[in-house]
Amino acid sequence: MVDLSDIHLDAALDRPLYKQLADKIETAWRDNAVAPGERLPATRELAGQLGLNRTTVSAAYALLEERGVLQGQVGRGSFLLQRAEAAQSGRDSRISFANARPCGEAFPLDAFRRLAKQVIDSADAAEILQLGSPLGYSPLRRHLLEEAASHGIARPSDDLLVTNGCQQALDLIARVFATDGQSVAVEDPVYHGLVRVFSRAGANLLPVPVDEAGLDTRTLEQTLQQHRPRLLVVTPSFQNPTGATLPLERRKQILALAQRFGTVVIENDIYSELRYRGKTLPRLKALDESGNTILLGSYSKVSFPGLRVGWVMAPKNVIARLAEAKQISDLHSDQLSQAVLLRFAESGELARHVEKTRADGARRLDAVLRACSRYLPPGTSYTRPDGGMNLWIELPAPLTADALLERAERRGVNFLPGRYFGVHGGHSRGMRISFGGLAPEEITRGIQILGEAASRELALIPANIEMEPTAALV
Amino acid sequence: MVDLSDIHLDAALDRPLYKQLADKIETAWRDNAVAPGERLPATRELAGQLGLNRTTVSAAYALLEERGVLQGQVGRGSFLLQRAEAAQSGRDSRISFANARPCGEAFPLDAFRRLAKQVIDSADAAEILQLGSPLGYSPLRRHLLEEAASHGIARPSDDLLVTNGCQQALDLIARVFATDGQSVAVEDPVYHGLVRVFSRAGANLLPVPVDEAGLDTRTLEQTLQQHRPRLLVVTPSFQNPTGATLPLERRKQILALAQRFGTVVIENDIYSELRYRGKTLPRLKALDESGNTILLGSYSKVSFPGLRVGWVMAPKNVIARLAEAKQISDLHSDQLSQAVLLRFAESGELARHVEKTRADGARRLDAVLRACSRYLPPGTSYTRPDGGMNLWIELPAPLTADALLERAERRGVNFLPGRYFGVHGGHSRGMRISFGGLAPEEITRGIQILGEAASRELALIPANIEMEPTAALV
Repeated sequence: MVDLSDIHLDAALDRPLYKQLADKIETAWRDNAVAPGERLPATRELAGQLGLNRTTVSAAYALLEERGVLQGQVGRGSFLLQRAEAAQSGRDSRISFANARPCGEAFPLDAFRRLAKQVIDSADAAEILQLGSPLGYSPLRRHLLEEAASHGIARPSDDLLVTNGCQQALDLIARVFATDGQSVAVEDPVYHGLVRVFSRAGANLLPVPVDEAGLDTRTLEQTLQQHRPRLLVVTPSFQNPTGATLPLERRKQILALAQRFGTVVIENDIYSELRYRGKTLPRLKALDESGNTILLGSYSKVSFPGLRVGWVMAPKNVIARLAEAKQISDLHSDQLSQAVLLRFAESGELARHVEKTRADGARRLDAVLRACSRYLPPGTSYTRPDGGMNLWIELPAPLTADALLERAERRGVNFLPGRYFGVHGGHSRGMRISFGGLAPEEITRGIQILGEAASRELALIPANIEMEPTAALV
Repeated sequence: MVDLSDIHLDAALDRPLYKQLADKIETAWRDNAVAPGERLPATRELAGQLGLNRTTVSAAYALLEERGVLQGQVGRGSFLLQRAEAAQSGRDSRISFANARPCGEAFPLDAFRRLAKQVIDSADAAEILQLGSPLGYSPLRRHLLEEAASHGIARPSDDLLVTNGCQQALDLIARVFATDGQSVAVEDPVYHGLVRVFSRAGANLLPVPVDEAGLDTRTLEQTLQQHRPRLLVVTPSFQNPTGATLPLERRKQILALAQRFGTVVIENDIYSELRYRGKTLPRLKALDESGNTILLGSYSKVSFPGLRVGWVMAPKNVIARLAEAKQISDLHSDQLSQAVLLRFAESGELARHVEKTRADGARRLDAVLRACSRYLPPGTSYTRPDGGMNLWIELPAPLTADALLERAERRGVNFLPGRYFGVHGGHSRGMRISFGGLAPEEITRGIQILGEAASRELALIPANIEMEPTAALV
């Protein structure tokens, strides 16, 4: 049974307690913090655990059933749906812009099955099952280093460490280089998991605003000059949540600033393959003549997220320190998935899949940009990404993303409000639209509903309400 | 190319520099800290990096070639051998008691292939490839919890988190419960990776001696009383490196002491399935009426170490905190291997394999105990385990394990000296004999060589040398 006894609600908030409770459970379910398929506590039990009225819990469960998160089974209780079931049950009525994930239906499952069987039948299988190197499965490392060298990204002085996805790469970097209150400059807004990993390590986070062309280099200069952070973490292409991409000039500026102030750049490069239009830009690591940039890559955004394979490419002495931390953390990454993904890459199936993802992505991007231009009320601004899975909307003051979300959910549409992405809060009028897992028609319909809901909310706001200052972003 | 520029040698030691260098490279290779198959730096280059004479490096490389660690290729340089190649090239001449690993040749590769293909072809494959839960693959979690409940190990109030092997379980526990100088009582001698993970987290390690019947409960009582550590980490069955197993009475004493002094017991239970003789003893978690014991399990000692699947079983609130740390660390464990190992367990192949491993292990254990009794010189003591992969020898004073190792290596036999397992050093006369990967004849021959080498070393020691006090252990 799911344990929800840790949930804390805030009676001081405007949002009713039953909605707060439903939100928390849904977020835990979306974030995979609770296991789909499991039973929820009985309403009486959860009410007792959380000190709530039983009707509050019943109302929250009813709302979650409407939202397609759980299902009541007579005589057995309430069960969290598998996300696949939820997607199905809500196919006609529900459009979620909340998940920044590739579309599962488009997975090349046949190719995966064929290639995984090749690996399993190969003579390498016996070695894969043996304890491996903390650095990673050696044939995969060689492949990634050679590929990067052929594109002018890796130097002879670089090495590569395989990690359990990009999240572990950030975790190892945080544990080795950002402990004891050391300063780390990060984009704001930014992916929530990045804030958590550096906060947990004890780093002092310095937020630098992001505009439509990515990290604001003028503020960056002030921040580096004033605080001399040890690290700067930046996602140059199709940043999450804004979708922003740094133009060449800013890339060069960032490297020059980093060198001037002795800051090491961590280049979070997990989306750059997903460019749907415009010209590919060189990676910071390729532009950086100092050789200090640490590049993070991953297969999970372009192939199978359930196989946890990412990597760090960096100067050898950096990799040696990260490999030591990796060995203490979990000895090494799982070798079966490393071998399967290597086969996937070497066979050309990965390139074919990325090609197809790009074609699909272009249609999705086209749909979301058209719909934004057509349906969002005047005063709304939004980013215009050239790839990736996310776009950022800034609502006209004083409309907040939470107010819009509440109305939109009643019409079967949801998204993550901007406050999820603030380094130190804020972004109350921002919202992330993740379009990577939806069909173009769903995207169009969903944005239309959001636009209508935003217009209605704005119409309800008295003309004399105190206006918040306009946010710097976008 | 392998980066060895971090190596530090100590000119003050008795051991010549070229041997120290060879030792360090071999250890890195055995610990997988450098990748097999990779090229070593040219002797001139490494000499420059380490500030050594070039002939020192040449001599180290020559010694490593003799030891079967590397191979020189004319005009190309020196390459680290794959461990499989090394095992082959050294089959006749070399016996290594240094690796506490199951024997790779005994892997049920056919069963693995058949079952992995079933998983890949199943309808579950699509879900396995999707992003999963930080708690682990839900069918595997259910299987492990039900199995543990049926053996009276798990309670309804317990939950389970899947980790990347037991090492990550220790790492997450250290990060959540043992930071900021908190005290953690550990066995001494103990597995080196356990010391590293808690030291790195900033814990204050309190060594408690281990004798042939495991943790010394009298010293434990003093330690708990004096320091009130938050955690006690204990391997009740076939402890690494001693092979010691706690009898029932000590198990109960440990739990009573832990409860009395408010210490949480971490039960490292990765070897208990490998019992070759005698009666199975109940796990601490099953005996602990307080319900506080945290149980660590793993598939990697009894199946395929390259598939990184372990778990933590503990009260739900503990699992919730560890799951949060897991999510920040790497989102979740790889799902393909979780699904394959679940199939391995459910099909009965795991039980069949464990059965076979036990039969093989019994022959190995028999061989090592007979050989110790027959060949070790008078004054040597050793543990008599009932299972697992390790046995501990204590040499008669003043003979040290390092002195014996040097002579034994010339005759093609090696092992890890006791100093690798000291929490704060020590154990200079101890040595770990890992017999899990060797044939009974190799074991007999290897112990014979060790016995002969020890007798010769003892004969060389002048009668009037100052004797070290006898160690408390064994």
